[in-house]
Amino acid sequence: MISRITILGTGLLGTSVGLALRAAGFEGTIAGWNRGAEQGQVALEMGAVDSLAADPLDAARASDVTLLAVPIYATLDFMEKLAVVLGPEQLVTDVGSTKQIITITGTRLYNTTERAAFLPGHPMAGKERGGAALGDANLFRGAVWLFTDDPTAQRSPQAVALVQDWREWVTKMGAKTLDLDAARHDELVAWVSHLPQFVATALSALLEEQVGDAPELKDVGGRALREMTRLGASPYSMWRDIAHTNTEPVERALLLLEQRLAYLRENLRTPELRDEFEQANKFRRE
Amino acid sequence: MISRITILGTGLLGTSVGLALRAAGFEGTIAGWNRGAEQGQVALEMGAVDSLAADPLDAARASDVTLLAVPIYATLDFMEKLAVVLGPEQLVTDVGSTKQIITITGTRLYNTTERAAFLPGHPMAGKERGGAALGDANLFRGAVWLFTDDPTAQRSPQAVALVQDWREWVTKMGAKTLDLDAARHDELVAWVSHLPQFVATALSALLEEQVGDAPELKDVGGRALREMTRLGASPYSMWRDIAHTNTEPVERALLLLEQRLAYLRENLRTPELRDEFEQANKFRRE
Repeated sequence: MISRITILGTGLLGTSVGLALRAAGFEGTIAGWNRGAEQGQVALEMGAVDSLAADPLDAARASDVTLLAVPIYATLDFMEKLAVVLGPEQLVTDVGSTKQIITITGTRLYNTTERAAFLPGHPMAGKERGGAALGDANLFRGAVWLFTDDPTAQRSPQAVALVQDWREWVTKMGAKTLDLDAARHDELVAWVSHLPQFVATALSALLEEQVGDAPELKDVGGRALREMTRLGASPYSMWRDIAHTNTEPVERALLLLEQRLAYLRENLRTPELRDEFEQANKFRRE
Repeated sequence: MISRITILGTGLLGTSVGLALRAAGFEGTIAGWNRGAEQGQVALEMGAVDSLAADPLDAARASDVTLLAVPIYATLDFMEKLAVVLGPEQLVTDVGSTKQIITITGTRLYNTTERAAFLPGHPMAGKERGGAALGDANLFRGAVWLFTDDPTAQRSPQAVALVQDWREWVTKMGAKTLDLDAARHDELVAWVSHLPQFVATALSALLEEQVGDAPELKDVGGRALREMTRLGASPYSMWRDIAHTNTEPVERALLLLEQRLAYLRENLRTPELRDEFEQANKFRRE
């Protein structure tokens, strides 16, 4: 079914998808494009893409499937541009970390029998540092790949088949697919993804201020400190768009954590501390 | 030099020390004792100790070195009991996670030429779950083993030699030793060890409350969520004594983190978010 794919954005995720498709036996063509030429070149040399496109819209026009693997506002920008150049026998999908605004935009611009299809996707995989060079054919193995498709989407039979085929390739890349309502998705990832990230950022920034001038002291913290601050290396460039497009759920989650930390602080010497540990233990029960 | 060691408390740390000493070539005897007989039996079967003592004080009396590998209040209790039965040619050392109260107690009860020596120690190694069965000869490899010795200690020549020899065994177990003032130690571990633990506990407890009823959603979070909540499994029984004996430094650290999270929450949509990410990135620079 799918024989021509274009990957727009050959950073960590885009490059990993190209490599994972090849590892899963995809034999069609994969064109790549990246805003900065250097990352495109790296992806090409790694074999994640067969060729680099001079123009992203031309490449998409020549493909069955276009994967948007760029930050969220760049994804929205491409969605606008691609909607007017693609047709009902083509599919656009993405890997953006927040889904409500993207899904609503998809409904507005795509998913009629006259237009291209749009399938909103979100692989729960990544690394704390980006870039094509860290691309990994196994990045999605065992990970969950979320979809927040609009149930009212109207698609051509060809587009329906492309959506089905793309879902199968996702499974072949080693991911488990899970379908969620877009608003529920954004609530959920605020808890299980965005809150952990912002906590790691705040903790790392505070530790840099308090003990950052004593680099040997990071050794003292050992594995626990390394794990709790690993995400501190995450780039603002990616998380800005997440903070801007999922603000209210993240605000709520942060506020509740602040309150929980204050409660724990006030109860360091009372039996209530036991209840907090037992509640935490439950989350980590086998 | 050291030929007879007693390990009081054969949980994760005590058992790991026994195994690590053997792996490092220690050929003397190692007696073990544990308040609950079952953990002692596990340590014995794993080869971490040669024999189990019926009475901890008798075993200590027959040893050159006694290692206290029990929670902090139990350590203080043993320090009181051992001080009156041991002599100036014997050494007591420990692995407790807070050091000021233990070091002060050591100065009060030990470290004269008439009395046994006490060397306060703290290996920065552990696992989120305890127990002899998880004991690991490599637990200390690459870890920092802190000492907060009292510089005014007066010891017999024999005790001085035992202290030196114990430090060498710590190095042979694969750890890097680092000497710190006890008050500075407690301030420092409040930042790099206790704060990360209490954050993981609060985060895990909150997530259990908010999304704990949807276990498949833990998969969605992936590695980042697993890492940020791994310490949520840590037992209250161990952390209670830490919270009680390092309360003020932990309170200060928690309060500053609460403020940092509030600042980040209030700036999710402002350029200040960039500064927080850049500050965090610095802590994780290679």
